[in-house]
Amino acid sequence: MRIGELSRRTGVSVPTIKFYVREGLLPAGELTSPNQASYGETHVQRLRLIRALLDVGGLSVAGIREVIVAVDDPERSVHEVLGAAADRMVPRYEREPGGGVEEARERVAALIAARGWRVHPESPASEALTVALAVLEEVGHDTFTEVLDAYADAAERVAVADLDYVAHQVAREELVESVVVGTVIGDAIFSALRRMAQIDASDRMYGSVN
Amino acid sequence: MRIGELSRRTGVSVPTIKFYVREGLLPAGELTSPNQASYGETHVQRLRLIRALLDVGGLSVAGIREVIVAVDDPERSVHEVLGAAADRMVPRYEREPGGGVEEARERVAALIAARGWRVHPESPASEALTVALAVLEEVGHDTFTEVLDAYADAAERVAVADLDYVAHQVAREELVESVVVGTVIGDAIFSALRRMAQIDASDRMYGSVN
Repeated sequence: MRIGELSRRTGVSVPTIKFYVREGLLPAGELTSPNQASYGETHVQRLRLIRALLDVGGLSVAGIREVIVAVDDPERSVHEVLGAAADRMVPRYEREPGGGVEEARERVAALIAARGWRVHPESPASEALTVALAVLEEVGHDTFTEVLDAYADAAERVAVADLDYVAHQVAREELVESVVVGTVIGDAIFSALRRMAQIDASDRMYGSVN
Repeated sequence: MRIGELSRRTGVSVPTIKFYVREGLLPAGELTSPNQASYGETHVQRLRLIRALLDVGGLSVAGIREVIVAVDDPERSVHEVLGAAADRMVPRYEREPGGGVEEARERVAALIAARGWRVHPESPASEALTVALAVLEEVGHDTFTEVLDAYADAAERVAVADLDYVAHQVAREELVESVVVGTVIGDAIFSALRRMAQIDASDRMYGSVN
């Protein structure tokens, strides 16, 4: 198809498509004449991945390039590609924790060991947990960590469902797209469900009495 | 105590304390002389609540006033106070969904009914879920909703742990503070744990083979 049709099919403007080609995010079309290039389904798919990483994942163009390099590298295992995408989507907590980071890091390492999780204690996700726990202690809610095991149980349940969903994708590119979309929108979905379940639990606990 | 000591104990500057008093967020101190006021533990507690709502909850001054009015109103049940705080902390998804909102709303209502959750289908949390599901469908991942039940199970597990934690707080003000801190930092904690559990699940599924 011509670039105009690629634009219509994907909702991405022609100048933006050209920008992605220049930046190396999208392979150039096949030249059919000196002034005309032809695009195929792989371009549609790749544009969908780029938009997912950009709009939903909030990644920068440089971050997208890193993920795409990993997707295109046949030497990288699926696990490595998923890791490359996921590492760039760890939300970072704004507030800098004062102290207690070392103690929180030890608690995270202990949690990983107790769970038998095959996760590096210095992965971006582990670091994000470390900072959140340090902030929690800073604001005087260190006993909240008592409920950490319930959270970890629930996270395992969700992660297994996530991976089951991902496993239905056949193409490697679709698989990465699923992880990106599922990870980011999945956070929003879980956050909303948690509020709803809290309202229900609060109603049962406090609703009828004062 | 004098305002200087209140400032030292809470880490909130004297001009900011005076601003909170003017805005009606903090009760004025008791006048001990025409130019001097005395503050007590309730002021320390209230400042901690204000900072939690502001720094961690990301609420505006107007939003904080609404929560504080609810906390101070003896007619409001604990459940209503928790609801007033939680409704203001529902994260909103940036992207406006194109269509499919009505269908998503029906799916959310069906989920609430199937779970027996005592949640209004038009509560901010239900609306947030509706939008997230509509976005998911828009980007072509409507089959993701198959895993919604696993998410809802996990959310129930987390919400019960949340409420158990909150139930340990004796004072009504501390209870609201716990909900704010637990809700916002709890989201960050769960998000990090979900990534870690995903890395583990991905390693088990794809780690050894390609």
